[in-house]
Amino acid sequence: MKKVILDCDPGHDDAFAIMLAVQHLDVLGITTIGGNCTLENVTKNALKILEVLDKTDIPVYAGHEGPMVAPLVTAPQFHGETGLDGPDLPEPKIKAKKKHAVDFIIETVMNTDDVTLIATGPLTNIAEAISREPRVAERAKEIYIMGGSVTFGNWTPAAEFNIFVDPEAAYRVFNSGLLVNMCGINLTRQCCLTFEHMQKFREIGTKAANLAADLLEFFIGSSVSVSKLTGANLHDACPVAWIINPKLIKAVPMHIDIELKGEYTRGMTVCDYRHLRGTEPHIDLYRTPTMEPRGEAPNAQGALELDFERFMDLLYETLKNYN
Amino acid sequence: MKKVILDCDPGHDDAFAIMLAVQHLDVLGITTIGGNCTLENVTKNALKILEVLDKTDIPVYAGHEGPMVAPLVTAPQFHGETGLDGPDLPEPKIKAKKKHAVDFIIETVMNTDDVTLIATGPLTNIAEAISREPRVAERAKEIYIMGGSVTFGNWTPAAEFNIFVDPEAAYRVFNSGLLVNMCGINLTRQCCLTFEHMQKFREIGTKAANLAADLLEFFIGSSVSVSKLTGANLHDACPVAWIINPKLIKAVPMHIDIELKGEYTRGMTVCDYRHLRGTEPHIDLYRTPTMEPRGEAPNAQGALELDFERFMDLLYETLKNYN
Amino acid sequence: MKKVILDCDPGHDDAFAIMLAVQHLDVLGITTIGGNCTLENVTKNALKILEVLDKTDIPVYAGHEGPMVAPLVTAPQFHGETGLDGPDLPEPKIKAKKKHAVDFIIETVMNTDDVTLIATGPLTNIAEAISREPRVAERAKEIYIMGGSVTFGNWTPAAEFNIFVDPEAAYRVFNSGLLVNMCGINLTRQCCLTFEHMQKFREIGTKAANLAADLLEFFIGSSVSVSKLTGANLHDACPVAWIINPKLIKAVPMHIDIELKGEYTRGMTVCDYRHLRGTEPHIDLYRTPTMEPRGEAPNAQGALELDFERFMDLLYETLKNYN
Amino acid sequence: MKKVILDCDPGHDDAFAIMLAVQHLDVLGITTIGGNCTLENVTKNALKILEVLDKTDIPVYAGHEGPMVAPLVTAPQFHGETGLDGPDLPEPKIKAKKKHAVDFIIETVMNTDDVTLIATGPLTNIAEAISREPRVAERAKEIYIMGGSVTFGNWTPAAEFNIFVDPEAAYRVFNSGLLVNMCGINLTRQCCLTFEHMQKFREIGTKAANLAADLLEFFIGSSVSVSKLTGANLHDACPVAWIINPKLIKAVPMHIDIELKGEYTRGMTVCDYRHLRGTEPHIDLYRTPTMEPRGEAPNAQGALELDFERFMDLLYETLKNYN
Repeated sequence: MKKVILDCDPGHDDAFAIMLAVQHLDVLGITTIGGNCTLENVTKNALKILEVLDKTDIPVYAGHEGPMVAPLVTAPQFHGETGLDGPDLPEPKIKAKKKHAVDFIIETVMNTDDVTLIATGPLTNIAEAISREPRVAERAKEIYIMGGSVTFGNWTPAAEFNIFVDPEAAYRVFNSGLLVNMCGINLTRQCCLTFEHMQKFREIGTKAANLAADLLEFFIGSSVSVSKLTGANLHDACPVAWIINPKLIKAVPMHIDIELKGEYTRGMTVCDYRHLRGTEPHIDLYRTPTMEPRGEAPNAQGALELDFERFMDLLYETLKNYN
Repeated sequence: MKKVILDCDPGHDDAFAIMLAVQHLDVLGITTIGGNCTLENVTKNALKILEVLDKTDIPVYAGHEGPMVAPLVTAPQFHGETGLDGPDLPEPKIKAKKKHAVDFIIETVMNTDDVTLIATGPLTNIAEAISREPRVAERAKEIYIMGGSVTFGNWTPAAEFNIFVDPEAAYRVFNSGLLVNMCGINLTRQCCLTFEHMQKFREIGTKAANLAADLLEFFIGSSVSVSKLTGANLHDACPVAWIINPKLIKAVPMHIDIELKGEYTRGMTVCDYRHLRGTEPHIDLYRTPTMEPRGEAPNAQGALELDFERFMDLLYETLKNYN
Repeated sequence: MKKVILDCDPGHDDAFAIMLAVQHLDVLGITTIGGNCTLENVTKNALKILEVLDKTDIPVYAGHEGPMVAPLVTAPQFHGETGLDGPDLPEPKIKAKKKHAVDFIIETVMNTDDVTLIATGPLTNIAEAISREPRVAERAKEIYIMGGSVTFGNWTPAAEFNIFVDPEAAYRVFNSGLLVNMCGINLTRQCCLTFEHMQKFREIGTKAANLAADLLEFFIGSSVSVSKLTGANLHDACPVAWIINPKLIKAVPMHIDIELKGEYTRGMTVCDYRHLRGTEPHIDLYRTPTMEPRGEAPNAQGALELDFERFMDLLYETLKNYN
Repeated sequence: MKKVILDCDPGHDDAFAIMLAVQHLDVLGITTIGGNCTLENVTKNALKILEVLDKTDIPVYAGHEGPMVAPLVTAPQFHGETGLDGPDLPEPKIKAKKKHAVDFIIETVMNTDDVTLIATGPLTNIAEAISREPRVAERAKEIYIMGGSVTFGNWTPAAEFNIFVDPEAAYRVFNSGLLVNMCGINLTRQCCLTFEHMQKFREIGTKAANLAADLLEFFIGSSVSVSKLTGANLHDACPVAWIINPKLIKAVPMHIDIELKGEYTRGMTVCDYRHLRGTEPHIDLYRTPTMEPRGEAPNAQGALELDFERFMDLLYETLKNYN
């Protein structure tokens, strides 16, 4: 199994990321970051989820309370006040480790070969680890993130929430030399679950599946009412699914810069995919792969297409395998 | 016939814009702007084209030599040193009028109802007209432009050439209250002509068609060698075709801001099309029209899909109708 | 007498600029620009002042209503609703010429040798003249402006009002090749008039002096109450006094850039005077002239010190010489 | 004695800061930061200086190698390749502690009352401490820094070196709530030592004084040849002298913002001292203290005037008191 550290801010969709990760990957630790909700809450939420999954052996480390430079923005309109509203989970019995998440990341990466980083929240902890120990970017295998977008944003017309919250951290990570496998909002919009999917979770009936159903119910509600979506996007589950089964996602190499200065574009992942444009009515990103990249050398893989059906198969299977 | 002023910087694709416009629209005047090439050359090129088309009654007015604030950038790699390399056209006998393009635009719009503006170069002349006489933005019917993009850029990863050359002018126009019908590079990439099309032009055999063939031959050459495209995009012909036959292009209302400050995004048309995202693998911009726009009220129509076949029918027909 | 065009937005202190200019210089025309107040009002104000001074032969040309790119900001808190509150002046009998200020500037500069430009408002008209006819920057002798600062701002901590209102215009002018003689807020703060000076005006007793007294009375009031100053700064009179008698002002060559992008510094005149720093407690700008400029070649003369006593002598003398 | 942590990047002038601090203040620890030279070298330099001063009981902690977000810039033209060229010092026998500087700062401030921070290099370590433990900004007494400027810059026309190197860190510190006592380049230019001062050091003749003389000799050389100054500025000694004897420096409260976005102003400390302008030819910053601050509430004390003579007295006395 691939050795990973999962940095997250649960968060309904982060919960699904944890469910997938701890069953299919060798999760060396879960680190938390203020983002969807406060650090205190997201850490507690991570512990709660591990208890439901009976995976309390996986250590949890709390990280930064907020961004490197900018003030913290959270998203209570989507995740409620606790960051994980919906299911009624007891206070966790297990606790987070004393060690700071950034120190855990540094020590683990420096002492273990081939660790893959996964980040489903703002990139603060990862950037701080690289800032404190630049060799982390050389030693880690690569990073998979939920964040940014190849095309449109969600928090602003041009920027996606996770990158918008801490653009300086994203800048540091994208310029670190570490290959970034980016599941942007363009990809995760394809991962749209509705009440039908919730019904299937209920039918599976395991404790994990019931948690999944409760989470999804709340998340569909807020996604429909706030963003006028037709369902809930399991954003954070996508990069984890990608590592578990690379065939689930089609991606292409591209150079991605992080805009820090723009008036309308701060926090945008500026993707150079000029070599990919198609001639068809829709923007056909991946069907003209013969063209060579223009501009700067690729530092990322931009995810473009999700095989949603097989993604759901993986998720159903995973929920069945829990108690 | 619709009354229009055509502001352009010929340029190979501008030549096609002129061919379409002067046959199908009531062109009150052609105004020129430094862009693809110097003002002197683009003005001469406009005159040459009118002579080939036997439309020397349409007045031509020279405008600004370059952008409002930024220094001029031209594109000799695509259009050659004359701005219209390829065909061997004689020096024009007719001359541009003495009146400045900006004054012509102001006087015409202020004294004539329902004038539609078309701009296929940098927006300098239009912005300067609005700057000098803000009521132009109220009096003109609307503006159709080739410029910007709903998605990717060409001159930089995020910016298209015409907007990149004079972003301050674009900012002024997009914030003027005038409805902008934007044919961005995302649309004009769908208008891709190859040697097969050139062959058809030759078969048509009119003077205009031969000019079209010569222009296309040169333009395919530079487009393939410089941009590694599979043909030549008749960018500037698209907004003209759109006015002539609105059914040729599908567009949706959206708010568009012009980024002036970004490090990687200066000159970007920041389009808010968060309401349009689809759930399909490609970015399905127009198949989910039920969603309401988010953010600021639309100030533009962003063109998304070209009916290329019918566009070519219009172009062939037009070339046949000339001598 | 030196041939000048005076571009202004009267405005109380502009009125003093006019009084000085039309007596001591060959004023080829006065051009107006929206700034301190609306274009309509500032134009009317210029005409009123000329009538009081019996200088109705000097032509007045209205220019732009507002900035090239940014929306107009005015300063009613300092100049009242009319832009010239205080004195009770009749509606002017004379009228502005039909010709646009920008056209007047272009034609005059292109057809007359050695014209010096003076600008005491936002630089919009000057920038638009250069934009429309770039050779204006080569033909004009130089430009004297009230605007910017070698040190602190007034409208924001870093920016002075005139430059802040239209930074893009300032950018164009400072990068045009035309030598800019800059009377910034650092200089004009040294030109601080109090009720004692007003009393002297009343003693002089000419029509012009009475107007001066009325204007000063209002302007001291607003300056003290709004800006907590100890008197009123005759900002706009300074550059005119400088041309009339170069000995009134000490200035040094420096490179000045216009910041367009900063979050806290938009509209700042970024002065490179690193070669001028002193070692004394105050910032001694001009007493260490042995050091060579660093950075880019100077494009401006930054005014540093006003001989206020001799300035007042000039002003008293001028007011006496009117009827 | 006041309890302090000295964060520095020695550096010739940092060496003087250390000499002053360890004799007159209760230095809980010295932390190092990449800036004038690499982290490895500045840490070694700190150790070497402590050995010369016989103060090897003061612990040294190495911190960040470079800035939070931007790439590292060093200043070998002023400090040589070792960061402390000039004196011939042996390799240090003592070593830096294992603990990271940021952790030392956090633990010390959280567990000790009334710790004052001093920073004479880029603010990276301080910002990282606050980022990791936001309560550091509440617990620490205040911070004294060498960095920024009330007026002109040195590294660029608008920015001083220490702030320019890590503007994001400065932004975080100035916005943390911690009162910043800022010795900017405007102040430290008043601290200009020449060969006469060096001669005095040699006459004092202690080991410390000889080191001071050797350092000064090299630093005068580079300052004169590179910056065309008339001597060497002991920038970093100024904030330490200020804490030791507050009467040495006159300062006034002001609001200071850090510009991150400007094209010409990135790294500028944007000081709002509009309430302090004088009416005298030089910019009289402190003689009109009756005016109330405008704009935002002060977050800093901006140093304006150094009593250089008494500063030198303190320095001579200090060097005599060492062996």
